[in-house]
Amino acid sequence: MLTRLTIHTTGPGLYEFAREIAAELSGQGDGLLTLFCQHTSASLTIQENADPDVIRDLQAFFARLVPHADDPAMSFLRHRTEGPDDQPAHIKSALTQVSLSIPVQDGRMMLGTWQGVYLFEHRDMPHTRHVVAQFMAS
Amino acid sequence: MLTRLTIHTTGPGLYEFAREIAAELSGQGDGLLTLFCQHTSASLTIQENADPDVIRDLQAFFARLVPHADDPAMSFLRHRTEGPDDQPAHIKSALTQVSLSIPVQDGRMMLGTWQGVYLFEHRDMPHTRHVVAQFMAS
Amino acid sequence: MLTRLTIHTTGPGLYEFAREIAAELSGQGDGLLTLFCQHTSASLTIQENADPDVIRDLQAFFARLVPHADDPAMSFLRHRTEGPDDQPAHIKSALTQVSLSIPVQDGRMMLGTWQGVYLFEHRDMPHTRHVVAQFMAS
Repeated sequence: MLTRLTIHTTGPGLYEFAREIAAELSGQGDGLLTLFCQHTSASLTIQENADPDVIRDLQAFFARLVPHADDPAMSFLRHRTEGPDDQPAHIKSALTQVSLSIPVQDGRMMLGTWQGVYLFEHRDMPHTRHVVAQFMAS
Repeated sequence: MLTRLTIHTTGPGLYEFAREIAAELSGQGDGLLTLFCQHTSASLTIQENADPDVIRDLQAFFARLVPHADDPAMSFLRHRTEGPDDQPAHIKSALTQVSLSIPVQDGRMMLGTWQGVYLFEHRDMPHTRHVVAQFMAS
Repeated sequence: MLTRLTIHTTGPGLYEFAREIAAELSGQGDGLLTLFCQHTSASLTIQENADPDVIRDLQAFFARLVPHADDPAMSFLRHRTEGPDDQPAHIKSALTQVSLSIPVQDGRMMLGTWQGVYLFEHRDMPHTRHVVAQFMAS
């Protein structure tokens, strides 16, 4: 299975898409799922999906760790043509994941009890994001 | 090969488990090893296994980068019900790896000379952690 | 396909090697490419390859986030025998990727339009770096 999932984002934050993946895996057996984010200003992460404050706090931490380019602390940045949120988005992507490898058993991702799969949007404006999903049978 | 390794932790820090993996790979040929951490407050990393100060310093850096929730710098955190070490643990997990992909040759991980494979525990209390290990022959 | 790419570095920064990978993949079909960095003071990242300021700014951010060991902010570090850039290099490696998993279609990496594949060198002196590249057909 090799497909490309589309995720519409509406500002910075985490967007769960485990359900879309589960639908693609349905009917598959054992193997390996690879997720690959085709962007450098959005990324992938696996986080707790029980309390929504977890992903809210995660996004808040990254916003403080890597402020927008118009913050005095970021005056060293040169890549500014696409807006003050652009280079920080590249940095946040580098600090998280572009690819995830998830073992699959009987057509189901072997996630822990509280693990959700998220696209992490780092840009301020709405974007259409693409994640390649590949299943290889073992 | 698809198995689940169990690692008992006794506080924050790095726990090497390369030996447990090597035992599972014994007798396998060429292929790909995927390690997947089934938690969102512990993670995976590959680090130098020669000088123990390397992993001690790594843990010390993360403790400073992401202080506990009762530190004034972290007053913006909302997810606090599970203790002051919980949300910082989620953040540290997002900053490191949930999955690792390691090429295998003749049943041995193709690690560099000084590379060890570690579970990175981010919680203060002892925990039982599970890492899925999957080998796919090439 | 299982090979080891060699990358010569001349100080901290990002070194693109997508062309070397593309040459190895030439003639392959669909499958999964795994890249694995055999070092703990250099790492892997996928970043924008359009504006060179993006990777320059990325390196500048990491230099500020993890200063050299002779910076007063890093006085807590103990691993100092290999120079003030060594332990920070281990930390920067932990914050980025040791392995990347990239789906391949018709012998080509399924990268986004602006994505380049980089070795991220964290040491000051020139180094010879090795990255294992493995292709598994699906």
